[in-house]
Amino acid sequence: MDILTEKFARLGCDNAPGQEGLQKQQLLDLRGEVIEGRPVDFSHGDVDAFEPLPGSFEAFEEGFKIGGKQAYTEYRGKDFIREDVARKLSAFTGAKIDPKKNLILTPGTQGALFLAMGALVARGDKVAIVEPDYFANRKLVEFFDGELVPVPLHYYDNAGQAGIDLMALEQAFKDGAKLFLFSTPNNPIGAIYSRDEILVIASLAKRYGAALLVDELYSRQVFDGREYTHLCAQEEIPGNLVTIIGPSKTESLSGFRLGAAFGTEYIISRMEKLQAIVSLRTAGYCQAVYKTWFEEPEGFMEERIAQHQAIRDELVGILRSVPGVKVRPTDGGSYVFPELPELDVSIEDFCKIVRQLAGVTITPGTEFGPQFTHHFRINFSQDKEAAADAVKRVLDVMERYRKAE
Amino acid sequence: MDILTEKFARLGCDNAPGQEGLQKQQLLDLRGEVIEGRPVDFSHGDVDAFEPLPGSFEAFEEGFKIGGKQAYTEYRGKDFIREDVARKLSAFTGAKIDPKKNLILTPGTQGALFLAMGALVARGDKVAIVEPDYFANRKLVEFFDGELVPVPLHYYDNAGQAGIDLMALEQAFKDGAKLFLFSTPNNPIGAIYSRDEILVIASLAKRYGAALLVDELYSRQVFDGREYTHLCAQEEIPGNLVTIIGPSKTESLSGFRLGAAFGTEYIISRMEKLQAIVSLRTAGYCQAVYKTWFEEPEGFMEERIAQHQAIRDELVGILRSVPGVKVRPTDGGSYVFPELPELDVSIEDFCKIVRQLAGVTITPGTEFGPQFTHHFRINFSQDKEAAADAVKRVLDVMERYRKAE
Repeated sequence: MDILTEKFARLGCDNAPGQEGLQKQQLLDLRGEVIEGRPVDFSHGDVDAFEPLPGSFEAFEEGFKIGGKQAYTEYRGKDFIREDVARKLSAFTGAKIDPKKNLILTPGTQGALFLAMGALVARGDKVAIVEPDYFANRKLVEFFDGELVPVPLHYYDNAGQAGIDLMALEQAFKDGAKLFLFSTPNNPIGAIYSRDEILVIASLAKRYGAALLVDELYSRQVFDGREYTHLCAQEEIPGNLVTIIGPSKTESLSGFRLGAAFGTEYIISRMEKLQAIVSLRTAGYCQAVYKTWFEEPEGFMEERIAQHQAIRDELVGILRSVPGVKVRPTDGGSYVFPELPELDVSIEDFCKIVRQLAGVTITPGTEFGPQFTHHFRINFSQDKEAAADAVKRVLDVMERYRKAE
Repeated sequence: MDILTEKFARLGCDNAPGQEGLQKQQLLDLRGEVIEGRPVDFSHGDVDAFEPLPGSFEAFEEGFKIGGKQAYTEYRGKDFIREDVARKLSAFTGAKIDPKKNLILTPGTQGALFLAMGALVARGDKVAIVEPDYFANRKLVEFFDGELVPVPLHYYDNAGQAGIDLMALEQAFKDGAKLFLFSTPNNPIGAIYSRDEILVIASLAKRYGAALLVDELYSRQVFDGREYTHLCAQEEIPGNLVTIIGPSKTESLSGFRLGAAFGTEYIISRMEKLQAIVSLRTAGYCQAVYKTWFEEPEGFMEERIAQHQAIRDELVGILRSVPGVKVRPTDGGSYVFPELPELDVSIEDFCKIVRQLAGVTITPGTEFGPQFTHHFRINFSQDKEAAADAVKRVLDVMERYRKAE
């Protein structure tokens, strides 16, 4: 098999969130009748249940009307929009962000992640990655021919911590990992890294001269009044640091594909060079929509967060009522990652079966690390009642496949 | 210097079209006074002079109102939009395009080009590239660690042909080039490949088992009633073929970032896997705008093409009136690539000087191949009068730097 055939075989996206509709027909061990109920797609948030930020469409319209000056921008994004975004992100995180040097606007946070990885990972480089973490992280290491060094997250029974194995992280750096990438709140656990954890990560990276890539996509959606620590605003940070964030999640602007990365000047500059050949720029008219970000009407974000916290409580309650099902309640963000007891089918097949028997789309745990063979992820940014009913249907289907003891 | 520092040093985009505003101050040999006139940015088309397709904003609005189903799509693009686009591109090109297997929607044609190159170029692969051709082609070969094999275009004095050196192309394949990438109409010359040239390219690629990547971005804008041959619709085509096209140019939809690639199933499938980690998908709401493409009001495209042809005639006339300036009239697309006599300054400096003294932005020829040290590119999709006056100012400035004989 040639190099590319092999590489793309490892980059499969058939089980990736959102791709379920393209899955080929296959013979599944379907047990029992279909359970009726409103179909729910937990692979991503429902922007009909939680609508795009107020004013986002109008901002787009305004951008369109400006015309040429908005259609074509520097590859890193329109200057006055970068100024606005840099000011808002500085205020939010506490970091100093020079809009000319330290910021790039990207097509979604996915775009930011890809560019940052492309700017930092050379063939053969060791890259430390948390397990479990966002599924594309692993694929990006593959794509750039890096070597993945897993860092476990011990996420049960440690309230106030995400549970990162800091010894494993230090060992990864000692063994030559040049980059550490992690998300906080974590995807798919929803664990927020504590101040202590963040400080140790920053200090280890600095000591070993490693770069840090911090995915803060869900950092505005924090539950239970929990403390959130922005690594980029700490005193002791490494010389190679990029933070990524965007309005696709809590703000429901994913349909515009807007993201941002800020950090060390030379990395942002490399990211821009790469963006020039990847997609040129974030869609010009869409860039106008950054204006609505961090300018929400008073009380809007508080209410949205409270609503998500209520859904979390509801779903965690349902999941925990079933013997053998484990789940860590989400600290922040819209994910839970339930762990199931032994089943008669693989988790990939279980997810396909659930789609057929319960009309519910969930993502298999193995997308987040090969060892998560009993887990699935759901994005609970959904209509609350529909989500609760859908989770009950998933659990009902699950009972049909529970391994006999 | 480490691998990445070296690689990104070669990927400079300071002189790339659209980046001029970010250029650092430098000492330039400025001769004479500023020449007053309306500033013209020839680095890209002026979508205020040639406005986006009628109905494009309304189509976006409709997409936004659909909500979640439009915001999130399969990575390769929404199914019913792929069906519509496949039908229209099949009718336009004569190729058979199965919307399920042979088509992917991408963020701009740049996105299509990046994904196709990523799907086809492995480290060390030889890639045949026309010189001159679109500046990002060369950079993509660099980025994917390929080896560039130049194929010259002898573009003067051969009416009816683009002028590709077919012996050089065959030699490149003999020497192991696995991929040949070219644009027709060519960027920056505007040369259209003749039917004979297309047939030989297809047959050579087939014989040597090479893949073809055909950039047809400007294929709807053909002047003088010239014949245009779609390689993808010919009888004898290679087993690895991708054609890219999009509505960013003649249709002026660049601000939405819409592109498309169609061709061999396994390549499109790889491109989708890559899109999943690059930017997820073409912005969902923007995808709704594909609807307006190839559905222009009657006479719209004919008029737009005629207007561009008239601008071409005007500018070519002005350029040819100056001794020592050479230019091939554009067969299709919006570019001309004038060749200047010997100057006292480099072409990169000349372009910067022109920006300061004449308020005109042009792109140095060296972006399209290292040997084009006396050339610059302009995109003449501009207000006709403003463009003509701007070209005159460029030529006036040029006289101040003409080398004494």
